[in-house]
Amino acid sequence: MTFTPNLVLRRLYSDVSKKVRAQKYVLTKYFQGEPKKSDFKIVEEDLPELKDGEILAQAEYLSVDPYMRAYMIGYKLPTDMIGGQVAKVIDSRNKNIPVGAYITGPFGWRTHTVTSGDKIFSSSIDLPITVLPDLRPYPVSLALGILGMPGNTAYFGLKEICQPKEGETIVITGAAGAVGSHVGQIGKILGCRVIGFAGTDEKCNYLEKELGFDRAFNYKTCNVRAALKDGAPNRVDCYFDNVGGEISSTIMSHMNKYGRIAVCGSISSYNDTAPPKVTIVQPALVFKELKMEGFLVNRWNDRWQEGIDMNLKWLKEGKIKYQEKVYHGFENMVDALLGILRGENTGKAVVKV
Amino acid sequence: MTFTPNLVLRRLYSDVSKKVRAQKYVLTKYFQGEPKKSDFKIVEEDLPELKDGEILAQAEYLSVDPYMRAYMIGYKLPTDMIGGQVAKVIDSRNKNIPVGAYITGPFGWRTHTVTSGDKIFSSSIDLPITVLPDLRPYPVSLALGILGMPGNTAYFGLKEICQPKEGETIVITGAAGAVGSHVGQIGKILGCRVIGFAGTDEKCNYLEKELGFDRAFNYKTCNVRAALKDGAPNRVDCYFDNVGGEISSTIMSHMNKYGRIAVCGSISSYNDTAPPKVTIVQPALVFKELKMEGFLVNRWNDRWQEGIDMNLKWLKEGKIKYQEKVYHGFENMVDALLGILRGENTGKAVVKV
Repeated sequence: MTFTPNLVLRRLYSDVSKKVRAQKYVLTKYFQGEPKKSDFKIVEEDLPELKDGEILAQAEYLSVDPYMRAYMIGYKLPTDMIGGQVAKVIDSRNKNIPVGAYITGPFGWRTHTVTSGDKIFSSSIDLPITVLPDLRPYPVSLALGILGMPGNTAYFGLKEICQPKEGETIVITGAAGAVGSHVGQIGKILGCRVIGFAGTDEKCNYLEKELGFDRAFNYKTCNVRAALKDGAPNRVDCYFDNVGGEISSTIMSHMNKYGRIAVCGSISSYNDTAPPKVTIVQPALVFKELKMEGFLVNRWNDRWQEGIDMNLKWLKEGKIKYQEKVYHGFENMVDALLGILRGENTGKAVVKV
Repeated sequence: MTFTPNLVLRRLYSDVSKKVRAQKYVLTKYFQGEPKKSDFKIVEEDLPELKDGEILAQAEYLSVDPYMRAYMIGYKLPTDMIGGQVAKVIDSRNKNIPVGAYITGPFGWRTHTVTSGDKIFSSSIDLPITVLPDLRPYPVSLALGILGMPGNTAYFGLKEICQPKEGETIVITGAAGAVGSHVGQIGKILGCRVIGFAGTDEKCNYLEKELGFDRAFNYKTCNVRAALKDGAPNRVDCYFDNVGGEISSTIMSHMNKYGRIAVCGSISSYNDTAPPKVTIVQPALVFKELKMEGFLVNRWNDRWQEGIDMNLKWLKEGKIKYQEKVYHGFENMVDALLGILRGENTGKAVVKV
């Protein structure tokens, strides 16, 4: 007889599953300016018993990402808050996902989730549910960072949209964030000159000294035009835009013919009630024949594992470093989100539940 | 013995060529706001005798195009004014270009030109020198319009950058201009829904009634958002942007996922001393994953004849109509340029020398 630990454990947990109450964040008011705790309600709900093929997952790490601020405008309220998480499977009626496994999934801001393992993509944010391999000695939280959505955003966004060639110059805004800091390191791996803009001298120092950026500038204190002349003497071939805003218009005016711009986000405007006005980009686009393309990482869902594998390989080879800011407690989700929107962190921010 | 009319005619003209004085516009001041006559000097110069391979061309029609306002900022002054022209070959020591032939070339604002027929591309604006076929019954001036640079701008810009598919919706700004009016008609040939924005009711009427646009709106009097809802109920797949400015940001916010934007010009800002500020485009680019690409038509110099041939075919089949505004007199170049920058014309503006 085959030993089926999954079945055994499921029996052990079967009483638990019936009683599990999940906590979740429900957004009840559209954000006005910065997100506020009073925009949310924490709601408890009883989860249903598992059906065949389903699993019960308990959140270990919740992700906070800039897109969360921007996306919610598209939902009818009240609605469950969206987001990715790393969760531990604590009950399973799915033969492919054993109890004890760690998974990532777009389950939102909630403590427990019942989900079908067969349903690979979720509807709210269209990202894969993945069973994690053994990541030790790395923390499982990396599956929300360089081995997850931000890592794949950096990998595919740079490679597929910017298409940098060896020797070209890449500029990155939001360069100390989870995506930006990763983009710059991939740029160095590909043999490019890498220039970052970030919001504190400390971050800039980290980018230059720890991550190998050729130059990093504090956009709050530098003259961006002068910084570009100084840092990108051959002008800019690829621009990885995380922030939008005036700095992006300035960078585009410093690009080379046929330059490529990957528009990953526009965090500089997310908290604005009305979208801001900046210098038009069209003249630079025409006369330098630039290509500017916005993207969402789920465009590459069918190549998801390629990105994860490559980033894990580079991580193991010591070519990619990461920094993580871990907030503690489910009740601190809003503070963590505020932190990234205010630029308080370097690298990836997660919340340990 | 073969009859060689070229050689015979060259002898007839050989005395003329030695004495020809050309008139040309020299830009002496950078434009501030609208171009002014006092920004230019009309200068006379003696042309050199023809060397082997060269021709002497006498301008018949000079082109005025919006790009002229924008380009000159890149030149060191004083400099000869750039531009395309249709010229008649009045002397030739090039066996491929007979006397009496009509040619187009980027010779600038000047009455006579000595040029090498072997030099296919000019350095100042990189457009082909072409010997025109017999265009009768059409005027040779079309070689500056639908059978020339604007026609190829419409043809390649729409096909290669916007890549419209049958049934998609195309929006065009500057829709009554030389390029815009042509883009819309190609859009209809390709089976698309075509919406234009132009600056007078008369132009809009012309676009709808004469050129077959599905809808045309006067951007000066309409609410652009409401016009888009009304005219593009399935939202916008392709945007051919001739104007830049706030209207472009509004149109981009009304596009479908994976929409394509061909940025051909930004005439709305050409007369501004400082580039204007408009609502940022990055959020629309990210969340709809739009691709926005600026282009100059000389990118397709190696396919130049393809565009001309296709536009001539459509013209002969009655599928493409054109309108021409002919100014008279070399001394009226600046007025003609002002006219197009002010949106005074429908279709293409040329100056008969």
